[in-house]
Amino acid sequence: MYLNIFKIGGNIVDDPKRLDVFLDTFSHCREKKILVHGGGTLASELCRQLGIPVEMNQGRRITGPITLRVAVMVYAGWINKNLVASLLARGCRAMGLSGADAGCILADKRKPEPLDYGYVGDLGKESVNVHYIQSILENGLVPVFSPITCDHAGQLLNTNADTIASALAVAFRGFYMVRLRYVFDREGVCCPGSEKPLSLLSRAQYEKLRDQGTISDGMIPKVENALCALEQGVGEVFIGNTCIRL
Amino acid sequence: MYLNIFKIGGNIVDDPKRLDVFLDTFSHCREKKILVHGGGTLASELCRQLGIPVEMNQGRRITGPITLRVAVMVYAGWINKNLVASLLARGCRAMGLSGADAGCILADKRKPEPLDYGYVGDLGKESVNVHYIQSILENGLVPVFSPITCDHAGQLLNTNADTIASALAVAFRGFYMVRLRYVFDREGVCCPGSEKPLSLLSRAQYEKLRDQGTISDGMIPKVENALCALEQGVGEVFIGNTCIRL
Repeated sequence: MYLNIFKIGGNIVDDPKRLDVFLDTFSHCREKKILVHGGGTLASELCRQLGIPVEMNQGRRITGPITLRVAVMVYAGWINKNLVASLLARGCRAMGLSGADAGCILADKRKPEPLDYGYVGDLGKESVNVHYIQSILENGLVPVFSPITCDHAGQLLNTNADTIASALAVAFRGFYMVRLRYVFDREGVCCPGSEKPLSLLSRAQYEKLRDQGTISDGMIPKVENALCALEQGVGEVFIGNTCIRL
Repeated sequence: MYLNIFKIGGNIVDDPKRLDVFLDTFSHCREKKILVHGGGTLASELCRQLGIPVEMNQGRRITGPITLRVAVMVYAGWINKNLVASLLARGCRAMGLSGADAGCILADKRKPEPLDYGYVGDLGKESVNVHYIQSILENGLVPVFSPITCDHAGQLLNTNADTIASALAVAFRGFYMVRLRYVFDREGVCCPGSEKPLSLLSRAQYEKLRDQGTISDGMIPKVENALCALEQGVGEVFIGNTCIRL
């Protein structure tokens, strides 16, 4: 049996039209499914309105205590509950979850050395509580995960949504045929000079394109996450409509 | 079998010491249990920081679109997920829920006549999805409800936490021996000149004390909610340690 894990990020969450199209497609998928969502600009906007300075460390954002509060409010609160309510209105029995709920994804706070990223969670091999999430799926419900987890001491942690999606895919690979799809604002991985996305991208091709600088920036961790999930036994991984292969 | 429904409000949520004591007590309760939480001052504080004017209508707060966003962020996001994580750290497998999740409490937006309260939800007899919440309870999990619901069209709604607690108590009265407890910052309903709370308060006594002005303000809807739940077949209702009787 298939389990479809869809991950959407800010470029979908922030765009009401794209989000509507996505939610229609998602709610029509008749197989088992999980939605993992990222942030969007609302958290940064709220930080700005509240006068919280953006703390960066070597180009990466630090999650201090107030930024954590904003992240939990926006991701686990506003975005998550709106997605759930919108899916419910489409007849899809969505169930909003953070990793804290029923302890279904427990993380460890990232070590402060060599760089202290603050309240950021990293996932390990035992992070995903497969048993509990499976009972939700088997009840015909659709888990909708916000990128918030917690540790064993009850500390909430901001966690990368792509990583949550791939950790779920890996955790469920022995139970279902897992299809992991990173949905974003383009149709897939494109090569320069071509509007049409690649239908297939192998690891060898990816390494070549990356070394040429054709695949760069944010697409690199996405493809590497995808390859990593495939290496760990996930059946199919798509970035947009581009199928990633080892 | 007993089902204990505890409701806590801002006076507990906002006070870390009281909250710790409450969460210890709650997590030690070995019977089936549900926690319903209200707000606290964080939502008002955030409104103030964001420069959102407090809109009132005949002394009651209006939930406009931005106030709704703040309510969802603070109640379903920050407060709910922190309660869940703190309970998890105490070995209590808490599951944070809004009424939107799995459609477990669906409300209707309050009619705009005679006064328009904005995005406020009212509950009806069919609002509580007993079946789904019961499956959570029977799985050994502990539902933790934020005072946010939604309607059938996917509109999130701010909803009174006392009302949610009593609607849950009424909905489950045929399935469990329901004990509903409104926990607050005092030990129970007190009479003036006495530090010691009443151990018992009957409807007749309440009406007398209310007419004398001894029970006033916020305590009136609390006692009336309690009496209403008893009338509808809920087994036991406590306000603090005061047992309310018909």
